[in-house]
Amino acid sequence: VSLTIALDAMGGDHGARITVAAALAFSRQQPDIHLILVGQENILRAELDRHGEDSDHISIHHASQVVAMDEPPALALRKKKDSSMRVAINMVKESKAQACVSAGNTGALMATAHFVLKGLPDIARPALCSTLPTTSGHVHMLDLGANVECSPEQLLQFGVMASIMVTTRENKPQPRVGLLNIGEEDIKGNDVVKKAAVLFRNSKLNYQGYVEGNEIYTGDMDVVVCDGFVGNVALKASEGVAQMIIHVIKEEFRRNMLTRLMGLLAMPVIKAFGRRMDHRIYNGASLLGLNGIVIKSHGGADALGFQYAIAVAAHEAKSRLIERMTEDLNTLLGETAA
Amino acid sequence: VSLTIALDAMGGDHGARITVAAALAFSRQQPDIHLILVGQENILRAELDRHGEDSDHISIHHASQVVAMDEPPALALRKKKDSSMRVAINMVKESKAQACVSAGNTGALMATAHFVLKGLPDIARPALCSTLPTTSGHVHMLDLGANVECSPEQLLQFGVMASIMVTTRENKPQPRVGLLNIGEEDIKGNDVVKKAAVLFRNSKLNYQGYVEGNEIYTGDMDVVVCDGFVGNVALKASEGVAQMIIHVIKEEFRRNMLTRLMGLLAMPVIKAFGRRMDHRIYNGASLLGLNGIVIKSHGGADALGFQYAIAVAAHEAKSRLIERMTEDLNTLLGETAA
Repeated sequence: VSLTIALDAMGGDHGARITVAAALAFSRQQPDIHLILVGQENILRAELDRHGEDSDHISIHHASQVVAMDEPPALALRKKKDSSMRVAINMVKESKAQACVSAGNTGALMATAHFVLKGLPDIARPALCSTLPTTSGHVHMLDLGANVECSPEQLLQFGVMASIMVTTRENKPQPRVGLLNIGEEDIKGNDVVKKAAVLFRNSKLNYQGYVEGNEIYTGDMDVVVCDGFVGNVALKASEGVAQMIIHVIKEEFRRNMLTRLMGLLAMPVIKAFGRRMDHRIYNGASLLGLNGIVIKSHGGADALGFQYAIAVAAHEAKSRLIERMTEDLNTLLGETAA
Repeated sequence: VSLTIALDAMGGDHGARITVAAALAFSRQQPDIHLILVGQENILRAELDRHGEDSDHISIHHASQVVAMDEPPALALRKKKDSSMRVAINMVKESKAQACVSAGNTGALMATAHFVLKGLPDIARPALCSTLPTTSGHVHMLDLGANVECSPEQLLQFGVMASIMVTTRENKPQPRVGLLNIGEEDIKGNDVVKKAAVLFRNSKLNYQGYVEGNEIYTGDMDVVVCDGFVGNVALKASEGVAQMIIHVIKEEFRRNMLTRLMGLLAMPVIKAFGRRMDHRIYNGASLLGLNGIVIKSHGGADALGFQYAIAVAAHEAKSRLIERMTEDLNTLLGETAA
């Protein structure tokens, strides 16, 4: 069965310049997958021409509008019915594509995807799930900002969806699931987390108990569940620390002639480190809980980053994530279904 | 005026072995300050003997009990009236010391300190405030776990207390204060944060608006305010990322003979980096909102770390933080006072 992925080719901070380059690079690696560049035809055609490459596996689908990065989601939903984002999502709805990818406005993407594709049965609201590096591999964390406040039942739904996703994408039969909490014994967690813990314990998930912030990165979990406020702050604080550390390392290597020389000598190690910690290879967050595959790329992603987001979409489409989700949700949610 | 600091010499993961060494090291640096080691006399005497050092500036005050690291706070409060922690706090209450330091059980320390010293007027609950490194210096963040759920008024109180602390400790007349939030426009923040923002805007604080998780570390703020759940997760996630990065760097330098050689050559830079990012120099969190100075050291701190926590206590005592706090709280809290 041949797969098609629709790309919101105008979204993100850099638009077509990045998405077209990413599509071409992806297509060289996985020519069995058809990509549709959705957006303003003249711009996309010019980008393809600029690369001097033409691929049988890439086509253009015209869409006249673009959703601005700061556009209110409600406005985008009402006024931008022919936006590259909306049309790419429509193609998933109409089964013309098996997945879509956008680097556009997160709020608009969530609102539009939810409106067009609808949520899965028993799932109150979709959640944004990202992959993060750990000491020994990687971990999936959700929600990262789609739901500011969550009920215990929603947290369980997040855990179940991510668990099915890991099983499907990574062939792990029993993903280890942890609930993000704070460590002080007496004040352990707020009411929502405490109530969620009971639901997790009584579920069929491979629930490992509470994890603290630092344990996101130890590699002891496959899935870490939290509400969107806490998850977004934890993710961004982590990015901030990583950037600060890189900044300080660079500053120390640039201090004088001697330290610059040391930096040159150590360059192969620095590069190997950079490759392992490269955030671009973790680009592509899954919007879980929708009746269709929607992958959110970082707005500022470059072509390599966007290419990784397309690869996530391809992987989820190939492994038939939505079908697996629909089959397994009921079993795993059990009596707690919303 | 001579200052005295009471040390809970039995607290923390390593107890007297660490606290006595730290006291001796601190005393060499600041011999004008008197330190009281509170705890089991025979153990403390043996530790001092082991170092073969005796200082006129260090004395021992016997306390027969020790609060265990995992002891429920309510139990510690009721049953451990002669614990090293409780007696050290009592000395602050009785003005025998101007500050106390403990690496013990956080929950027990907060409960005992609040019970013995009482809160400051107009402050609903004390908060734990830590210093974190930034790209260009450092920042103070609170609450980090004392209050799992906070009202908008409490968040304002945190901002006011930390602002007075920064002014007092660092001679900054107008510390820049930010409110931790998430970035998506449409879903910006939960109700508490939104309501807190109104209070901050109408206050006399030098309020800078919302900050996202990554902006904790950019050096654009002097104070970052959040509830204890979010703050604890952000702090620990940051620690986790830093540890993972250090782990990966080490792994890459240990990969083979050649990379080991590169590591040796770059050692001076690696060491300079290590000194700047050394978490021990940021040890010593202030428990703000009490009628007395209480400094919480990390439970696992080594002697150097605990020494830094003593230095924070000394600095706050010297600058008469509690007097400044009492004078300025009313002005800064204004009509929103609890």
